[in-house]
Amino acid sequence: MTELPTDPGACVVGVDFGTLSGRAVVVRVRDGAELGSAVHEYRHGVLDDVLPRTGRALPPDWALQVPADYVEVLRTAVPEAVRVSGVDSDRIIGIGTDFTACTMVPVTADGTPLCELPEFAEEPHAYVKLWRHHAAQPQADRINELARQRGESWLPRYGGLISSEWEFAKGLELLEGAPAVYAATAHWVEAADWIVWQLTGSYTRNACTAGYKGIHQDGAYPDREFLAALNPGFAGFVEDKLAHPLSALGDRAGGLSEQAAAWTGLRQGIAVSVGNVDAHVTAPAAQAVEPGQMVAIMGTSTCHVMNGSVLRSVPGMCGVVDGGIVPGLWGYEAGQSGVGDIFAWFTRTHVPPEYHERARDRGISVHELLTELAAAQAVGEHGLIALDWHSGNRSVLVDHELSGVVVGQTLATRPEDVYRALLEATAFGTKTIIDTFAEAGVPVTELVIAGGLLRNELLMRIYADVTGLPLSVIGSAQGPALGSALHAAVAAGAYPDIRAAAAAMGSVRRGVYQPDPANVEVYQQLYREYRDLHDYFGRGANEVMHRLRAHRRAALERKG
Amino acid sequence: MTELPTDPGACVVGVDFGTLSGRAVVVRVRDGAELGSAVHEYRHGVLDDVLPRTGRALPPDWALQVPADYVEVLRTAVPEAVRVSGVDSDRIIGIGTDFTACTMVPVTADGTPLCELPEFAEEPHAYVKLWRHHAAQPQADRINELARQRGESWLPRYGGLISSEWEFAKGLELLEGAPAVYAATAHWVEAADWIVWQLTGSYTRNACTAGYKGIHQDGAYPDREFLAALNPGFAGFVEDKLAHPLSALGDRAGGLSEQAAAWTGLRQGIAVSVGNVDAHVTAPAAQAVEPGQMVAIMGTSTCHVMNGSVLRSVPGMCGVVDGGIVPGLWGYEAGQSGVGDIFAWFTRTHVPPEYHERARDRGISVHELLTELAAAQAVGEHGLIALDWHSGNRSVLVDHELSGVVVGQTLATRPEDVYRALLEATAFGTKTIIDTFAEAGVPVTELVIAGGLLRNELLMRIYADVTGLPLSVIGSAQGPALGSALHAAVAAGAYPDIRAAAAAMGSVRRGVYQPDPANVEVYQQLYREYRDLHDYFGRGANEVMHRLRAHRRAALERKG
Repeated sequence: MTELPTDPGACVVGVDFGTLSGRAVVVRVRDGAELGSAVHEYRHGVLDDVLPRTGRALPPDWALQVPADYVEVLRTAVPEAVRVSGVDSDRIIGIGTDFTACTMVPVTADGTPLCELPEFAEEPHAYVKLWRHHAAQPQADRINELARQRGESWLPRYGGLISSEWEFAKGLELLEGAPAVYAATAHWVEAADWIVWQLTGSYTRNACTAGYKGIHQDGAYPDREFLAALNPGFAGFVEDKLAHPLSALGDRAGGLSEQAAAWTGLRQGIAVSVGNVDAHVTAPAAQAVEPGQMVAIMGTSTCHVMNGSVLRSVPGMCGVVDGGIVPGLWGYEAGQSGVGDIFAWFTRTHVPPEYHERARDRGISVHELLTELAAAQAVGEHGLIALDWHSGNRSVLVDHELSGVVVGQTLATRPEDVYRALLEATAFGTKTIIDTFAEAGVPVTELVIAGGLLRNELLMRIYADVTGLPLSVIGSAQGPALGSALHAAVAAGAYPDIRAAAAAMGSVRRGVYQPDPANVEVYQQLYREYRDLHDYFGRGANEVMHRLRAHRRAALERKG
Repeated sequence: MTELPTDPGACVVGVDFGTLSGRAVVVRVRDGAELGSAVHEYRHGVLDDVLPRTGRALPPDWALQVPADYVEVLRTAVPEAVRVSGVDSDRIIGIGTDFTACTMVPVTADGTPLCELPEFAEEPHAYVKLWRHHAAQPQADRINELARQRGESWLPRYGGLISSEWEFAKGLELLEGAPAVYAATAHWVEAADWIVWQLTGSYTRNACTAGYKGIHQDGAYPDREFLAALNPGFAGFVEDKLAHPLSALGDRAGGLSEQAAAWTGLRQGIAVSVGNVDAHVTAPAAQAVEPGQMVAIMGTSTCHVMNGSVLRSVPGMCGVVDGGIVPGLWGYEAGQSGVGDIFAWFTRTHVPPEYHERARDRGISVHELLTELAAAQAVGEHGLIALDWHSGNRSVLVDHELSGVVVGQTLATRPEDVYRALLEATAFGTKTIIDTFAEAGVPVTELVIAGGLLRNELLMRIYADVTGLPLSVIGSAQGPALGSALHAAVAAGAYPDIRAAAAAMGSVRRGVYQPDPANVEVYQQLYREYRDLHDYFGRGANEVMHRLRAHRRAALERKG
C-alpha cells in the first residue's frame, strides 16, 4: 500500500464477465488510461437448446453456462491484455472483476462446481444458471405470494416482487428439480464471488449481489419460518447454502493465489477486489456516483443503476441496497431483460436475403443497414408500436412470462419499420422505469449511457427524444472492465474510496445527445400508446401472455 | 339457342380477372370439363408505390390499376386458352367474365377510361381504383355517420357499415380529390361491367355489384338528399354517374362485338354473359347454391358467399342482395381483406436467408418450407396469437384502419412460428364471421373452400380444426373462371338457370378435411384469445390502430 505514490505507471487489471465472453483491460491507476485489452469468448456460450454432454433438449426458458469457460478468460484474456498493453506485470498492483447477475453456481465446500463432478455431469441443474435462466418463475410466484401474505418487510425493497432470476427462486428450483444436487451443494454461490474465489483461493461474498439478488436487507435474510413454508426441505437454505460474511464493494477480498498468478501471469499476492456486478461497477466508471445520475448499461439487456440519498419504495424496481453501488448511499437498480438481444433476434430471424445482400455489398452489418433505413424515417412514420418483453419484463412489472408484441403491421410494413419500432419499444421501457422512479420520489436528472449499444446513434437520439432527457455517454468503450479496474485500485489502496477513484479514473461525455422538441412531442403521444398496452398486457386486464406460455408448455408436453 | 342440344362438344370461355392477372378457361358445356386455360399477368400489376407515368409517390393505402392491362388478357389469354384446348373456335358459344370488386373505372360516355385521355394521364384519380385501394376511409366514415343519423333503411343490409372500398366512398373521394376528373366522368363503372362493355360494345350494369357495392336495395339507391348532405357537389352522383338499368346474373349482356371477336379469335355475336364478381361466380362452380353452404374463396384475400332463403341483418357482413349470387335467393357476402397477401408479405419481408437457401436446396418454395416446419408443431406450441388485419378488417368490424398484431414473441420465436400464427389468425377470422352469421340466424352448415390456398393442406387442417366444420373442396383449380364459363352457358341458353348449370358443370369434393377433436379443443381456447384481442383492438376499447395510422399520415406529411 505504500508503493503507489512512488510509481506513476502503476496499473490494475479489470475483468468483465459478460453473457457471451470475458474482457480484460489493463488500466493506469493515476488517470484511468486503458492501455490494453483482450476478449475471450466462452467456449460453450449460453446453453439454452441442448446440454452438449447429453445431447438432450433443455426445456424452454433455460439458460446454463459452464464454469470452466470463466477460468479460461483468466488464462487467456488477462495475459493477452497485459501483453497488448506493454506493461510490465510487476507494475500491476491489483485485479478486480465484475460479473453478470444473478448467475448462480452450486459448488462443493472447496468451490468445485457440481457439474464438474462425474456424478452430476449429465444433470442440467448442476450447471451454472445464467441470469437469464427463467425457468424458476413458479418458485418466484410462490415466494412473492407468501411474502405478500406474511407482509415481509424486505419485499418493498424489491419493488414488491422477487425475480425468478434471483438466488432464492433458483435455489428453490434446484431443491425441487434436483434434490440430490441441492443436497450436494455446500455453497450456492454467485458467479461474481466464485470467480474471486478462483483468484484468491477463498470464498468472500459481496454486499452488492447479497443485497440485490440474495434478499439481504437490514442485516438479515428471509427467516427460517418463511423458507419452511415454501418447502420444508428449504428451511435451512440460508444457513446451509447461502450465509457467509459480507464484504463491502472496493474492499480487498484477498491476495492473488499462486494458482491464479500462474493462470494470469500476474504477481502472486496482489490485491483482488471483492466481487461485483457488471452494471454496478459501471456507475463509477462513468463518474455517475451522485443521486439522480442514472446509468443505463445497454447491451443484450439493460441495467439501470443509480445512487440515492434516501430510501424509497419504487414499485417494480429490481432492488435498493444500502451500499449496493457505493458504500454510504442507497443503490437503486432496475432493468430491462431484453434490449440488444431483441434487435439481434429480429436481425437474425426476420430480415430477408435482399437486406443481407445489400449490407454485404456495402460492407456494413445488417444492423447498420436497418439503422440507416430506420434513421431516414420521421417519428411515427412506420405506424407501429411494440412491447419489448421478448425476454420478459424485469422492471416495472417483474414478470418473465410476459412476451413481445407488435401492433400496426400492414402489407407495406418493412423490416426497418419493425426494427425501429423495437428500438423505440426499449426506449419506452426505459422511460417507464424513469417515470416510476420519479413518481416514487427518486427523480432522475441525467441519463448516462454505457454499454455496446451506445455506438448506435439513432438509438441514442431515440432515447433522448423519448425520455426528454439529455444523454451523457461514458467515455470508455469498456465501462464494466474499467469499473472493475477502478475497484481494484481502491482495493489496492491507491485511492481512499470509490468516489475518489471515479473522479480520477472514470470518464464521461456530458449532454452528447439533446432531445429534439418536435420529436419529444410526438413520442409523448406514442409513449401513451405504449403505456396503455403495457398496462393492458402487463397488469392483468388480459393475461393472454401467461396463457400462451401455458399453451406452449402443454403443447410441448403433448409432443413429449 | 337451338344449336346446343345438337353439339355435344359445345364449349364456353370463362375469364377471371384477378388482382394480378387474368385467366381464361375453355369449358365444355355438357359436363364442365376444363379443356384448356391460359394466364396473362397484368403488365402494370398493382400501382401502390408510384404512378409510373409521373414517377411520383402514391399516398399510403392507394392501389391503382391500368385498364388497358385487362384488354390484354382478352387479346392474349383467351386465344391461348382456345389454342391449348384444341377446340375449334366455331364450337364456342359464349363467353363470361368475373372481376375483382369493388374495382372502379371512371369513363367517358363511350367507355374510354379517363386515364387514357392525355389531359388526365398524370392524374392518379383517373386510374382504376382497385378493390384494395383504401384511401377513401374518411369518406366512408362520413357516409356511415350520416346514414346512421338518418336511419337509412339500406344500412343494415351492409352489416351497418359501408366500406371504403365501395362505389360511393370511392366516388366521393373522386369528387373531393380530383373535381375535374369527377366532372369528366360520364359513368362510374365497375371493372366487372367495363370488361363486358369491351366485349359487347355496350354498357350493362350487373345486379351483383350494384347490390353489394353500389348500395342498390329494394329497387333504389341512396337518395339525392342524402348525397347532397355528404357534399352538395355529390347530389347528382346517382343519376349522373351511376344509374343504369340492371341485368340479372346469367343473363345475356349482348353479342360479342366485331372488335372483341378480333381480339379473342372467337365468333362475332356469341353470347356474352352479364358481368359478375370472382367470389360470386365461384359458388355455382363449387355446387354451393343452397342455403347454409358457405363458400370461402381463399386467395390474396378471402370472400365468403352464401345463399339464404330469408333476409337477416348480420352485423358487419359485406352485404345481402336479392339475387346477388343466384336469382331467387338472398345472397350473403362477407370477407377477409388480407389472407394469402399476409402470408406472402411475411414470406417476402420477414424470412432470413438460411430459409431461402434451404428451400432452394430442396427445390421447394419458402412457403412450402415454412408450411412443413409449421406442420410439425402441436397446436399452441409457438405460443403466439395474431390478428389478421394487415389489410384492415372487411367483416365483422368493417374497418380498413385496423392493422396486424402479433402477441407472444420471445427470443426463441422462429419464422415458422409467426407464419403458423398468421395462418391461424386468418382461420380465427373466418370463424368470427361464421359465428356472427350463426348468431344472426343464418347458420353455416358446410364450409366449401375454393381459391389457390386450398393447395396448402396445413392451412386446410387448421381451418377444419378452428371452425370445427368439415371442409369441402371445390373440384376445379380454376373456380372463378369455371363459374364465369357456367354463366356464359346459361347466357347462351344451354341451361335454363344457374342451378341447373351448376349441377352439370360445377364440381366439389365433400368433407375432404375433418376436424380433429383434440385440436378443436385447444383451438377453442386460442379462439377466445383471438376474440378478446379482436374486441379490444377492434371495438373501441383501445383505438391505438387508428391513432397509429394518423401518426403515419402526419409523419409523411411532415416529411413532405
